[in-house]
Amino acid sequence: MTTLSRDGYQWTAGAGLTKGVPTIGLIEPSSNTTGQDEIYDLIVVGAGYAALTAARDATTSGLKVLLLEARDRIGGRSWSSNIGDYPFEMGGTWVHWAQPQVWREICRYNMRSELEVSPDYTSGCNTFSLFTTAGGQHAHELTHHEEDALLISSIGKFFDVDGRQGQTLMPRSHDEFHNKAVLAYDDLTAADRLDQIKDELTGKEEAALKAWLLLMSGATLETSSFYEHLHWWSLCEHSYKGAIDFLIKYKFRDGQSAFALKFWNEALSTGNLHYLFNTPISSITDTPDLTTVTSTSGTIFKARKVISTVPLNVLSTITFSPPLPDLKAQAIATGHIQQTTKLHAEVTNTDLRSWSSINPSAKLVFAFGDGTTPAGNTHIVSFGASSKKLDPEVDIEATKKALTNLTPMEIERLVFHNWSNDEYAKGAWFFPGKGFITKYLEALRESHGNVHFANSDWAVGWRSFIDGAIEEGGRAAMEVVRSSREKEVAVR
Amino acid sequence: MTTLSRDGYQWTAGAGLTKGVPTIGLIEPSSNTTGQDEIYDLIVVGAGYAALTAARDATTSGLKVLLLEARDRIGGRSWSSNIGDYPFEMGGTWVHWAQPQVWREICRYNMRSELEVSPDYTSGCNTFSLFTTAGGQHAHELTHHEEDALLISSIGKFFDVDGRQGQTLMPRSHDEFHNKAVLAYDDLTAADRLDQIKDELTGKEEAALKAWLLLMSGATLETSSFYEHLHWWSLCEHSYKGAIDFLIKYKFRDGQSAFALKFWNEALSTGNLHYLFNTPISSITDTPDLTTVTSTSGTIFKARKVISTVPLNVLSTITFSPPLPDLKAQAIATGHIQQTTKLHAEVTNTDLRSWSSINPSAKLVFAFGDGTTPAGNTHIVSFGASSKKLDPEVDIEATKKALTNLTPMEIERLVFHNWSNDEYAKGAWFFPGKGFITKYLEALRESHGNVHFANSDWAVGWRSFIDGAIEEGGRAAMEVVRSSREKEVAVR
Repeated sequence: MTTLSRDGYQWTAGAGLTKGVPTIGLIEPSSNTTGQDEIYDLIVVGAGYAALTAARDATTSGLKVLLLEARDRIGGRSWSSNIGDYPFEMGGTWVHWAQPQVWREICRYNMRSELEVSPDYTSGCNTFSLFTTAGGQHAHELTHHEEDALLISSIGKFFDVDGRQGQTLMPRSHDEFHNKAVLAYDDLTAADRLDQIKDELTGKEEAALKAWLLLMSGATLETSSFYEHLHWWSLCEHSYKGAIDFLIKYKFRDGQSAFALKFWNEALSTGNLHYLFNTPISSITDTPDLTTVTSTSGTIFKARKVISTVPLNVLSTITFSPPLPDLKAQAIATGHIQQTTKLHAEVTNTDLRSWSSINPSAKLVFAFGDGTTPAGNTHIVSFGASSKKLDPEVDIEATKKALTNLTPMEIERLVFHNWSNDEYAKGAWFFPGKGFITKYLEALRESHGNVHFANSDWAVGWRSFIDGAIEEGGRAAMEVVRSSREKEVAVR
Repeated sequence: MTTLSRDGYQWTAGAGLTKGVPTIGLIEPSSNTTGQDEIYDLIVVGAGYAALTAARDATTSGLKVLLLEARDRIGGRSWSSNIGDYPFEMGGTWVHWAQPQVWREICRYNMRSELEVSPDYTSGCNTFSLFTTAGGQHAHELTHHEEDALLISSIGKFFDVDGRQGQTLMPRSHDEFHNKAVLAYDDLTAADRLDQIKDELTGKEEAALKAWLLLMSGATLETSSFYEHLHWWSLCEHSYKGAIDFLIKYKFRDGQSAFALKFWNEALSTGNLHYLFNTPISSITDTPDLTTVTSTSGTIFKARKVISTVPLNVLSTITFSPPLPDLKAQAIATGHIQQTTKLHAEVTNTDLRSWSSINPSAKLVFAFGDGTTPAGNTHIVSFGASSKKLDPEVDIEATKKALTNLTPMEIERLVFHNWSNDEYAKGAWFFPGKGFITKYLEALRESHGNVHFANSDWAVGWRSFIDGAIEEGGRAAMEVVRSSREKEVAVR
């Protein structure tokens, strides 16, 4: 039994466009306290993976925690809508054992065998549709082998700034500044680097590479940081196989929300978790002994510590007192540039299960068969970037056309979450402009009095990923728990 | 200030051979309780990484824990001896972000930047000494590039049982039985597989491959399971680069014991950790409500639950009541076959910093420059297998000869731990004979009444590694904490 969240959209021919989709991540009742009766050890703001990890780690360590969430569900930018027993992933989706934090949790919750593989080339058309733009748009029907070869060669050239595919510049993906020579590469945008190698690329390579970069950044080539692309590449062990396997291959059979519920239920089982959903906040006021969090409706909650998991692009909506230090404030004012459109389609064309498409000039730059629904239809997932922004709910016919322009398909259902128009996200996963990370990363990670900041947006490992959110939630909880133990020892 | 453990050996020309080496992992005082005053929530037997993780997770979750350890130090089969401010790794050494459990802890303890790289080819002889055996022993002086090429080609052939380097048989390293077709490969030994490809290998390839397999298994080609080698290969993402990077590249600047102390100190900081070192145990007796653990000196300790982290090859020394089920007992009676010799040498030949050696027919099958000591000497690490067993303490001149046979060197110091003669290890990391894992893995992981078994020897991910120990300790603690919470809820 799943209940409708306010989040997300669905379109079917029968029902038309409706706002709100079902999810097992919706929590009912939406609160188990008024939050007014006591001073909590910790208030956690948010309910995405950073918040869930922080709340779980703190409650299992014996702290009394109040969790405040603006939405009606857990998961933040990673949640699934189960429609007819089939999970559509509205945001963060794929996981892998090369992602240490997320994999540790998958082991802990004994979910190793609950993964499905997204691509399936065992039946169907087995076609890769590539659209190039040199001298007018050209459509090519290629094989997946040719797709791999194009991406391997073009991505390889893009990152080969040191004759070693970037390995010497960023040998340690989780200690990114280890070789200081890498810092200079944050002065480049993706477009700058493309300019350097444009004479090395065929038209097909250029198209494949551009679409890949737009898929990762969700932005434009002119705005996205080459450095950050290099960090992703390093996280993928500087290999295309790593990029495919680690980034877009394995997903949960029952959807992300089934995973998020594991954290939630463990925290609840301690008896230390108190929570209020539908409670957006407007301000956080800190004094040495007490911190207060005020909701947009004016209710004041009190705690000794606060962990804010509010995303970078939303932090500007919260008033901090005392004000945040300059560098952190500048980072917040700058924000990140990721504005991905992620659009699911259920189509009757079973052949498309093994189809993929790349079109760097389209509203949907990447698309591929992602599963087979219980009705036997093919599930297509597609991605667009701000380079040619698609807001799918605005004009459903145009949205369908963005898909059918790629290849003929009979669309029965569309499912999506518009992250750009979501006031609690203001964008999808973190991706920065040039110069941002090398300037602001440390400042974003610093606590401010009793207020700690945890979000995948400033993780040092798998930044922008679920893994990074868990990393950050764990870090913040550890800081809070450690300081509470030290206080306890001091009092004894 | 570091104190002498009873474990380990050191030889210098001045002092000769001495038993016991200094380590920061020695815990003083050696107990903080008699353990007689109460019934603990949990007794943890052992103090290696599985035990440290279990004790930390249980104590931070509020359980009252008694830890019993036979040795005088923490770390089990992974510990470092700091000699003149330089850590010699006596057992488990290398870590990597591709090892999810260990990396999660490295992040948690903020140690990402505390890693050193073992190989260093920036100066010195840059030589690879390869000894082949076809028609009498031949010595070759090759480059490291040639070394890589030989290992890439020969290891590739060894694992290419499916035309895809084993990828189709074991695509998911952490869900090893996912493709059931892999099970049949546990009927093969490494020697069986070598027979299948012997006409495909050059003499140099054969020598490199044999030494590699002996290095991994610490046993003989005729006894080690091809399946287990394939599991390691899968954990390394089916690539030689993965094998080098994940297995033998990054180590802690301050040694493993510095890492182990993080777990220890966190557990201690909760106030819930009680412990007795120098306390080997002889029996574990379980009733539904109470479990008792008896030391070899006859002291009885009481708890509601027990987590035994005793290694596979040592479990036969403990009497369980009620007796263990048949399959588990059979697995224990069979044991594993890993009998690695690991030998450190401090040598005055600075050129050897970039030297490596492979000799599959020698007492030391693998050796390479592993660091530079504060005195400016080169630190050589070397490995032998049971194929030609070296017990380094028995005849120091023969031990030195085993090293100088590989290349001329002036040895100033030897440091080692003989894991085979250690009654609390009876071998180094886990490596099984054929048929063992597919038959016994599940049985080894099962709890027995109130007694849980946690050890890297039966981890499902990085089995045999520190990562697997942390995986197992976390799993067992989770089981115990969960059942204690359920009991609490039932009582309320």
